Amino acid sequence: MKKVGKLWGGRFNVLPSQEIIDFLSGRDVRGVSACDERLVSYDLWGSRAHAMMLCKRGIISPRDGKKILKGLREIDSLYRTGKFKLDPSKEDIHSNIESLLISRIGIESGGKLHTGRSRNDQIALDMRLYLRDQVLEFGDGVIQLIEALLKRAGEHRGTVMPGYTHHQHAMATTFGHLLLAFAEGLQRDQQRLEHWLDIFNRNPLGAGAGYGTSFKLDRNLTSKLLGFDGPTENATDPVMQRWEPEADLAYAVGVMMNHLSTLAQTFILLSTREFGLVRLDDRHCSGSSIMPQKRNPDSLEVIKAKAAFAQGILTSLLSVGKGLFMGYNRETQWTKYWIMDLVDESRPALSIMTDVVKRIRVNKAEMLEQARKDFLGATALMEWMTASFNLSLREVKTVVEKAVRYSEMEGLEEVSHDSLKRALQEMRIEVSVRKKDVENVQRPEGWLARAQSIGMPSEKRGQEGIASLNRRLGGARKVLTTRKRGIEKAKELLSKMERTLGR
Amino acid sequence: MKKVGKLWGGRFNVLPSQEIIDFLSGRDVRGVSACDERLVSYDLWGSRAHAMMLCKRGIISPRDGKKILKGLREIDSLYRTGKFKLDPSKEDIHSNIESLLISRIGIESGGKLHTGRSRNDQIALDMRLYLRDQVLEFGDGVIQLIEALLKRAGEHRGTVMPGYTHHQHAMATTFGHLLLAFAEGLQRDQQRLEHWLDIFNRNPLGAGAGYGTSFKLDRNLTSKLLGFDGPTENATDPVMQRWEPEADLAYAVGVMMNHLSTLAQTFILLSTREFGLVRLDDRHCSGSSIMPQKRNPDSLEVIKAKAAFAQGILTSLLSVGKGLFMGYNRETQWTKYWIMDLVDESRPALSIMTDVVKRIRVNKAEMLEQARKDFLGATALMEWMTASFNLSLREVKTVVEKAVRYSEMEGLEEVSHDSLKRALQEMRIEVSVRKKDVENVQRPEGWLARAQSIGMPSEKRGQEGIASLNRRLGGARKVLTTRKRGIEKAKELLSKMERTLGR
Amino acid sequence: MKKVGKLWGGRFNVLPSQEIIDFLSGRDVRGVSACDERLVSYDLWGSRAHAMMLCKRGIISPRDGKKILKGLREIDSLYRTGKFKLDPSKEDIHSNIESLLISRIGIESGGKLHTGRSRNDQIALDMRLYLRDQVLEFGDGVIQLIEALLKRAGEHRGTVMPGYTHHQHAMATTFGHLLLAFAEGLQRDQQRLEHWLDIFNRNPLGAGAGYGTSFKLDRNLTSKLLGFDGPTENATDPVMQRWEPEADLAYAVGVMMNHLSTLAQTFILLSTREFGLVRLDDRHCSGSSIMPQKRNPDSLEVIKAKAAFAQGILTSLLSVGKGLFMGYNRETQWTKYWIMDLVDESRPALSIMTDVVKRIRVNKAEMLEQARKDFLGATALMEWMTASFNLSLREVKTVVEKAVRYSEMEGLEEVSHDSLKRALQEMRIEVSVRKKDVENVQRPEGWLARAQSIGMPSEKRGQEGIASLNRRLGGARKVLTTRKRGIEKAKELLSKMERTLGR
Amino acid sequence: MKKVGKLWGGRFNVLPSQEIIDFLSGRDVRGVSACDERLVSYDLWGSRAHAMMLCKRGIISPRDGKKILKGLREIDSLYRTGKFKLDPSKEDIHSNIESLLISRIGIESGGKLHTGRSRNDQIALDMRLYLRDQVLEFGDGVIQLIEALLKRAGEHRGTVMPGYTHHQHAMATTFGHLLLAFAEGLQRDQQRLEHWLDIFNRNPLGAGAGYGTSFKLDRNLTSKLLGFDGPTENATDPVMQRWEPEADLAYAVGVMMNHLSTLAQTFILLSTREFGLVRLDDRHCSGSSIMPQKRNPDSLEVIKAKAAFAQGILTSLLSVGKGLFMGYNRETQWTKYWIMDLVDESRPALSIMTDVVKRIRVNKAEMLEQARKDFLGATALMEWMTASFNLSLREVKTVVEKAVRYSEMEGLEEVSHDSLKRALQEMRIEVSVRKKDVENVQRPEGWLARAQSIGMPSEKRGQEGIASLNRRLGGARKVLTTRKRGIEKAKELLSKMERTLGR
Repeated sequence: MKKVGKLWGGRFNVLPSQEIIDFLSGRDVRGVSACDERLVSYDLWGSRAHAMMLCKRGIISPRDGKKILKGLREIDSLYRTGKFKLDPSKEDIHSNIESLLISRIGIESGGKLHTGRSRNDQIALDMRLYLRDQVLEFGDGVIQLIEALLKRAGEHRGTVMPGYTHHQHAMATTFGHLLLAFAEGLQRDQQRLEHWLDIFNRNPLGAGAGYGTSFKLDRNLTSKLLGFDGPTENATDPVMQRWEPEADLAYAVGVMMNHLSTLAQTFILLSTREFGLVRLDDRHCSGSSIMPQKRNPDSLEVIKAKAAFAQGILTSLLSVGKGLFMGYNRETQWTKYWIMDLVDESRPALSIMTDVVKRIRVNKAEMLEQARKDFLGATALMEWMTASFNLSLREVKTVVEKAVRYSEMEGLEEVSHDSLKRALQEMRIEVSVRKKDVENVQRPEGWLARAQSIGMPSEKRGQEGIASLNRRLGGARKVLTTRKRGIEKAKELLSKMERTLGR
Repeated sequence: MKKVGKLWGGRFNVLPSQEIIDFLSGRDVRGVSACDERLVSYDLWGSRAHAMMLCKRGIISPRDGKKILKGLREIDSLYRTGKFKLDPSKEDIHSNIESLLISRIGIESGGKLHTGRSRNDQIALDMRLYLRDQVLEFGDGVIQLIEALLKRAGEHRGTVMPGYTHHQHAMATTFGHLLLAFAEGLQRDQQRLEHWLDIFNRNPLGAGAGYGTSFKLDRNLTSKLLGFDGPTENATDPVMQRWEPEADLAYAVGVMMNHLSTLAQTFILLSTREFGLVRLDDRHCSGSSIMPQKRNPDSLEVIKAKAAFAQGILTSLLSVGKGLFMGYNRETQWTKYWIMDLVDESRPALSIMTDVVKRIRVNKAEMLEQARKDFLGATALMEWMTASFNLSLREVKTVVEKAVRYSEMEGLEEVSHDSLKRALQEMRIEVSVRKKDVENVQRPEGWLARAQSIGMPSEKRGQEGIASLNRRLGGARKVLTTRKRGIEKAKELLSKMERTLGR
Repeated sequence: MKKVGKLWGGRFNVLPSQEIIDFLSGRDVRGVSACDERLVSYDLWGSRAHAMMLCKRGIISPRDGKKILKGLREIDSLYRTGKFKLDPSKEDIHSNIESLLISRIGIESGGKLHTGRSRNDQIALDMRLYLRDQVLEFGDGVIQLIEALLKRAGEHRGTVMPGYTHHQHAMATTFGHLLLAFAEGLQRDQQRLEHWLDIFNRNPLGAGAGYGTSFKLDRNLTSKLLGFDGPTENATDPVMQRWEPEADLAYAVGVMMNHLSTLAQTFILLSTREFGLVRLDDRHCSGSSIMPQKRNPDSLEVIKAKAAFAQGILTSLLSVGKGLFMGYNRETQWTKYWIMDLVDESRPALSIMTDVVKRIRVNKAEMLEQARKDFLGATALMEWMTASFNLSLREVKTVVEKAVRYSEMEGLEEVSHDSLKRALQEMRIEVSVRKKDVENVQRPEGWLARAQSIGMPSEKRGQEGIASLNRRLGGARKVLTTRKRGIEKAKELLSKMERTLGR
Repeated sequence: MKKVGKLWGGRFNVLPSQEIIDFLSGRDVRGVSACDERLVSYDLWGSRAHAMMLCKRGIISPRDGKKILKGLREIDSLYRTGKFKLDPSKEDIHSNIESLLISRIGIESGGKLHTGRSRNDQIALDMRLYLRDQVLEFGDGVIQLIEALLKRAGEHRGTVMPGYTHHQHAMATTFGHLLLAFAEGLQRDQQRLEHWLDIFNRNPLGAGAGYGTSFKLDRNLTSKLLGFDGPTENATDPVMQRWEPEADLAYAVGVMMNHLSTLAQTFILLSTREFGLVRLDDRHCSGSSIMPQKRNPDSLEVIKAKAAFAQGILTSLLSVGKGLFMGYNRETQWTKYWIMDLVDESRPALSIMTDVVKRIRVNKAEMLEQARKDFLGATALMEWMTASFNLSLREVKTVVEKAVRYSEMEGLEEVSHDSLKRALQEMRIEVSVRKKDVENVQRPEGWLARAQSIGMPSEKRGQEGIASLNRRLGGARKVLTTRKRGIEKAKELLSKMERTLGR
């Protein structure tokens, strides 16, 4: 009895990596874990900071504080070693942890952990800690993709290709300049992530159920212990608008996914048999269950699906946040599931695209060939005539339009000297143009060499564009590093205070 | 060492049922299974029908056919007894089942199952079978909710309450009439579900990868064996538009969830301390982790979240279906996850709301009391004056508006005889109105008794509204029953043919 | 001093028609008229039916009735001759008309028109009348587009072209079969429009402010006079859910625009220089303000924009309809503007696309040429080997995959006899394949001739697909005609009753 | 013959202002002007800067430059005096202006204006200039609303009211603290607007059709003359992503409208007869066409509609920006109409809400009364017992929950001494609580006085919250002022250069 392996793949040199297989198979054969699994370590961190503050403020005794902190650290260990599983009969992560703590250290001490807080500020805290880490991870991913784009852009700063508008040949450009355009978009994505941190890296702990507490909390201390820039300044606001940090991230991700989806669509088209300008690495393609010859750009198509998903999640988040009543509304609980799904779906898109960019093969010969076709040099000719004969661009344009039409009628793909002369004559413009010039001027390399202003696709300007983006990338890297250092320091400070309290 | 149970609940007589707890806790502590788990039985059914057809057509031999069908039935048994688990290393359900079949009966026979089909038509088939069952289940749920509404509407067809517009007291109505309004909306939801069946209960199997096959398939036979009204009539269409049956269901669910969300919001407001007109059963409420007195209408708030979710999913489905290229596009795979999530999230909302409606307590005394306040009878007075004195409504309205203003200045909540006289005088309208009439006419019961046209809130008309809806409900029930019988018959026919083949 | 005309166009043989210019220039240079302009004739019709009913019921006197009806007819004449303009200082169309009526016939009679109704049911009525007409117009437009598709599908039922999946060459198909796929989708759009009529062609007049009236209205009569299937059966429902008829149309339009957008995107790609399989007529293209050679498929791109717009409008409609409170909510007024904008934007898309389909030129030679490339016949070869040698498809697929890879290494675009033999040997399958067969079997025409099951792209089946759709189209035409006749009859009846009353 | 005025209003002391009437009547009786009307002055400014740069660079002669600049200034004058109307037969604003210029100064000079640019970068420029002004205007509006909120928050920093969660009485708060919560949200809206300026105040002029030009442009100079921070750094990016500045503004507006909608919904509920805690000014309400007593909070309901609209527009913008192909795509033209509609619809919402906040009347007595009801002090009691007897909060909570239940059974609305003793006994907690303390502790004023941590609703902390926000507001004002000054300076510089050139 014979066996068979994969349902396709006989044609491929390299099969997809596990990461890509996971990316493509989506949730067909893999489930999604309980959302609060992702919050365990954040909830414990928040509880430790809260307990430490209660202790320092004298709201609970050092003895109770020590017991609670020890208990929480033990639960943390259990969790890290896979011995703490969420119990679905307890409503949520908060109840799970508090119940376990109480069962381990007793209600007399354990029952004091929740003093001066509510699940409303607790989950707002957990989510901000979770979202902050996601923002930083997205930041890393965006930077890596920009780096890959800049590297390839550098290699291809002189690789001439047709620039398109409306899916039609427009003017000459370079492949490097194209990659740079996407890098610019991603740099704005990076700015949106930084902006999230500017707005939302503030500590909601202490907001209670939305109206605070009569216990004298030290919200500056918990902010410090949790790596925040400071406490939120109104107790009701973060509880009432518990969809806004989620929406801001969803929007930033949505725009980023749109950028990726346009890059994906561009690569899909450029890699068709018909365009034939780039070739995806085998590992980003998959085969068919029946067609033996297929090599499908699945990774890129999936990215488009995820862009559509981001739009849907954002719609849900904005819809839930419309027309609430003052204070907490339970419907905002669902924002947790939505943003987590979006994070899970979209985060891998960055590394997949980074890999695609790194490995994509470029058909330079065909690119140059195509850049000479379909009257791609007509604009260059028009600009040259305008400049050379001090004519009005409007008139020259009409001339060249006519010349294109006559040349097309002759079956040509660039403006011929004859048709240009005919057009000039018709328009009664008396200038003398040499055949050689007409030909040379339409060559894409020549036009590119002349496109020297800021942002243009000449090799020199491309190099400057790369340098400029590299400078800004340096700034972005620094922001991320500083943020991460701040978080690490907060954790270290809490641990140190725990040790001191322990003595 | 003392223990503690739930973090809240000391105030409650009845705690939420497990169904409600699950509904409220969402995905906090429960994960989501792999999507293809939901498709196992559909995929097997489709494969059995396909194999039977291949056999009947002589495309595979009876010997191979028997082996394949036996193998598929065995996998079905394994699945039913929990012994068949999806292997994540195989891409999807189709690969999982085909691989297992091949490993059990060998590639010589097992390798023939996929003859004349592709994963593209296979998943289109699986999804239609899955979606059809969901549509039928939603149909059952909608009917049950309408039944509950009609029952309570019958009980409260005479329960006078204030009708609101713009959140303000407008005119008298009954609680029964209000429930009936929602029943009408749900009946349209039912029609949308029926419409889904009219459009999409057609068999895509045979579409292959979107361009058919050279094997001579009998698509009418597979349609019959799978309970379809017939085959889809173009191979490319169902593969290219693989988001449309999903979108149609998402839209139907979206409108339905909007109906539920408005019913939810209405109950939330009517049950506030301030309105105090209805009281939710304890089991639909939950408590707070810190405020001992809380009784929150969480079930209803969650329904609003799920309405927002439906909107987001629909957005994603429509966005992914925009501007595709001819044939299959991989991004449509994601529609599977989206619609499954939506089904999972929204289906329980119907039974929760049915339970809420069944158990909601009505404060009839307060309703009547409120219906006498805030000039609720002013319109009745206006209509009565218009009719009694053959005046122009526009003039009378101005009179009553003035009378309301004067009465309000006196601190009254209904139009006084004096203020009416003053207004009439001012407007120079000479009619003589008796004090007793002015008072009587403003009583809500009187006005309601006079509201006798179709669809109006009088008790008699309410009764007719219930009867009308009951008639239409009978039709809806019959549609569902007929559809379900059709599906059962198809399954029986396939089993019978398998037995015959086996002989 | 020389002059210049259009900024582009020198290259074009035919310039866009005014309809297309309007379609493309969008709202750049054209404003949008006040929304209620579109409602004038509906509001007058509704008022006439209402006044007639009041008269027949004896709620107003025949004398008042006659005056009112005469006044309304006069306003209608003024409107038709452009002499009635909306006065912005009056809030809306209802106030405008009622005020004008009163100023013309006096408040004693004119002030009675509003007896037994409210602006809430009045606008609900106006919108249903408006929407019904739009639904019928969309229906006409969809049918015309289907007709155009069927006509071209008939011409090209034998025009072989590559079928694509994932933007890659997949299997052979015909251009006619492709057009038919879109016609099928549009037929579902037609069904959705019919469904709208089934659900919403009911008369809300009499719902008042949402709670009816004490006047004894004859809602069956007004329903008859306005061409409705009957009155809505609950006064609150149509006022509370004043977003749902709008949303249902927006959804139907949204799906339809998605169908058009995918057809548009398919034409855009097929008409690129690189694909070169179709050519749009000049009149659907536009030029550039600087690039003399451009011929951009603007009409098709704009259709994609409008598909995105439909999605947004649907989002707004569903968002506004979420979590309302019982009765009327002012926010639903905005649904009027949204749906009117959507209608204005999307209605022309149908006729533009119909024109595109009618005029598109097909490069049959290139289509056939491409259908022979890129291993398009590999699946045909696999199916043929499976059938001919009674092999398992799975094994044959692996063989052909390998053969594709070896042939590709040789620079070929179809499977060579040698590579197939090598693959068979490697897989230890001992069958003897003739070179001639290997070649013939891969020819697209041969495979197409064998694709004979329902829905497949062979010429014969294509013909049957066209016939099937033509039959269904006949049914659709009949539905529209019957609906339109019903509306005409209602208008005639009202006029007749007015004449009788006048005597 | 008598006349009648408005269809309602007899009950009102103050009728709505024209601004509010316009806000409420929406587009019923007012049309929308052509979109490019809004761009005339931006397009002229851009053309002047471009012409000046061409001149300085020697691309056109000083003579041509002077003629062009003079011509453009004349068109500007015509426009300002209403003598320049868009001609719909010309496609857009760019063609309109260029044609007019050419007809006035001849094609020899006028035909040179378009040298080195394309309509693609021209419209990208116009939109950035337009959007920048809108962002600044929104910024002004947001600041004014925050100021109004802070002023009223200051007045009501001691106005005790019930805080709600889940629409239920939760804990005591102040009206001032509630207003402050919304002010905090708006301050984030302000930050999003600033962020827009950080990202998008860059000059796209020079991008041409997306691939630049061979003319040697001085993009730094045009940036300076147009008040930009500098040129965009890649020619393709701003043309390809022509939806992104629009989407960023739509998102910022969407979140802001959500904030307003929640404030609106809160005011709507608090102003119902049932809540009775605030009263809207007459001018923000409207009446009914039939119910004489109505006073509807229409202004606030309309704001909710506009929040839904913002969500829809954002959906369209993101949908159109998904999966584009490299370079310009015509569908992005529609982003212009969408964002302009959103701006027109949402900008007035800020000033309307500012007016609502300024004029809203607060029922302090009823607020205090309500704050003593429904066990609002139960949490205060729990916190006090926890603190006073060094008990575990978890245990005390169970005690108080039971006590609430027992008190409720006695028909009370606050925890009685007896029920508390009973609960303590049941839980076997031996502490002695005095009746007087139980009563005092539950008083809202007392609890509020103790809520002293950052962000809490005590009067003192409220004052600090106001001060903190005032500080941040100062920063925001400075950002706006600086930006506006920058724009003015750019205009002055251009005028000065024109004068110099003129000499």
